[in-house]
Amino acid sequence: MKLLITGGGGFVGSRLARALLARGTLDGQRIERLVLTDIAPPPAYLLADARVEARIGPLLAQTEALRTEAFDGVFHLASAVSGECEADFELGLRSNLDSTRALLDALRTNVGANVGAGGKVTRLVFSSSVAVFGPDPSVPLPKLVADDTLPLPQTSYGTQKLVCEHLISDYTRKGYIDGRAARLMTVTVRPGRPNGAASSFFSGIIREPLAGVESICPVSPDVSHPMTSPARTVDGLIAVYEASREAFGGRAALNLPALNVRVSDMLDALEEVAGPKVRALVRFERDERIAGIVANWPTGATAERAARLGLHPHENFADIIRQYIADCAALPNAAETLKGMS
Amino acid sequence: MKLLITGGGGFVGSRLARALLARGTLDGQRIERLVLTDIAPPPAYLLADARVEARIGPLLAQTEALRTEAFDGVFHLASAVSGECEADFELGLRSNLDSTRALLDALRTNVGANVGAGGKVTRLVFSSSVAVFGPDPSVPLPKLVADDTLPLPQTSYGTQKLVCEHLISDYTRKGYIDGRAARLMTVTVRPGRPNGAASSFFSGIIREPLAGVESICPVSPDVSHPMTSPARTVDGLIAVYEASREAFGGRAALNLPALNVRVSDMLDALEEVAGPKVRALVRFERDERIAGIVANWPTGATAERAARLGLHPHENFADIIRQYIADCAALPNAAETLKGMS
Repeated sequence: MKLLITGGGGFVGSRLARALLARGTLDGQRIERLVLTDIAPPPAYLLADARVEARIGPLLAQTEALRTEAFDGVFHLASAVSGECEADFELGLRSNLDSTRALLDALRTNVGANVGAGGKVTRLVFSSSVAVFGPDPSVPLPKLVADDTLPLPQTSYGTQKLVCEHLISDYTRKGYIDGRAARLMTVTVRPGRPNGAASSFFSGIIREPLAGVESICPVSPDVSHPMTSPARTVDGLIAVYEASREAFGGRAALNLPALNVRVSDMLDALEEVAGPKVRALVRFERDERIAGIVANWPTGATAERAARLGLHPHENFADIIRQYIADCAALPNAAETLKGMS
Repeated sequence: MKLLITGGGGFVGSRLARALLARGTLDGQRIERLVLTDIAPPPAYLLADARVEARIGPLLAQTEALRTEAFDGVFHLASAVSGECEADFELGLRSNLDSTRALLDALRTNVGANVGAGGKVTRLVFSSSVAVFGPDPSVPLPKLVADDTLPLPQTSYGTQKLVCEHLISDYTRKGYIDGRAARLMTVTVRPGRPNGAASSFFSGIIREPLAGVESICPVSPDVSHPMTSPARTVDGLIAVYEASREAFGGRAALNLPALNVRVSDMLDALEEVAGPKVRALVRFERDERIAGIVANWPTGATAERAARLGLHPHENFADIIRQYIADCAALPNAAETLKGMS
């Protein structure tokens, strides 16, 4: 089978690619070819695999060519992040909305005469986000957002994700694709440098102290949020791909599992795993811009439909930290990224 | 003030134009200029008014010019109807989604340096639709859809309306427009010939018998649906325009009021108003395509937020029929349209 991962060079995309290559099969079919599109090249270990083909550049510029190229499956992860979309409205529209629309139209054009003739349409898994949820003056946000909570996004990023969920549902209803949207929870611990996401600090307050560097937490310690690890996120995307339509249960998006955790719980877990000196590297300094965005985010989530697919959240945040440490330890720069623990 | 009505030549748009011209003011300001865009010319009585300017052609082709033209207010009603959008997927995307996006981007470009400098942005009322609601296997539809019912559209038309609701909310949040989306209920009795809407028969089973012509009802008499009159719909759009942001209550779309009525109730009302011979002109002949679409529609709606704006549904369907008869009686072809009553 031939697969496409948009955003295949990114944090989740490259891990998904690695997992798929390691499995060798998806939904019972052998993976012959794995195309990764991204604005930056994927990691070298992916490029080294003969099944991998990397295409570098904005997705929007690549969709015209996709009109005549058949894929068995697509994981559509490419996206500008929330902070970027707030700072640059047009970037968000282009990267998140126009690119998705162009991708869907390419797949629709591709279908051609197959539809209705028993031909199989491309299966597409879309990474939506917990950011679709937010409080509106007319409808307060529940304590825990569920699969069927009314999404009222309070950011352009969340709006664009929600709009794509509904387009994918309609293209699926029309038989142009077999689309499934899964809402990713906040994925921690992200390696590397802070990115433009308003949620960046959720990784920073763990990653920086582990590297022996001070980190600033811009929100109060009692801020709670649904969080998960990259590995569980990848498991979720694969399970959603492999689910039958009946098991997926409708065309509406579902929540992926999350551990609902407070910043203070995260820091307790950090202390448990790495000791009090590491924890002491986190300093609280309120940033009104970030705190204002985060105040409109869900404090927790449930994921009933995902549970029926066998997907469950981590039981504690220490496990998420340990996964990050194990990931770092396997890399050449382990000494640097885990300097705080030495 | 200068106003724009997109779809200003249409059923609701032309009535809204007439009502605005008769009032002379909107939100306390004198209406100096009323621009009507539509693919067909507006009625002659509107063109005869010196304040009216008609621009004929698809909205999408007109949005580029709108980038340099300032409007105090916009009623965005232009839309391809549900049946058309199901039959021609690209038409729906172009007419309902791309046109709205281009209109919003024109208004955003227009805002220029005003935003944040206390400048007033264009107020925009969007006619969304009860078609945003539908049952998904994962989430059944409640008996009555409320303002905050989870919308899971089951048609391309409903999907496109919902997507526009969310775009308008986000452009409003960003301060590019002052947007308010109001969900229109099914508006009856439409004059003229049946159109491509799957809901067309809701008017046909009243309009045709009143004209002495047989009408076929494609669904069962116990099908229930939220309905309203053109006059109440126009009242609703104007009230939503004139509401303060606080009174509108958030950025989420609201339902306009509807009378929840069964087909059999409609026919009882027809008999009450026009006699048993007229009622006898309605014949039931199931159309699986129409019945299948209608089976996914809400059987009724509530409109709490609209009620707080002083908007209420009709108390009975006979009033809606009487409004249609009064409208027809005022036109030159009254003898023809009300032939069944003679």
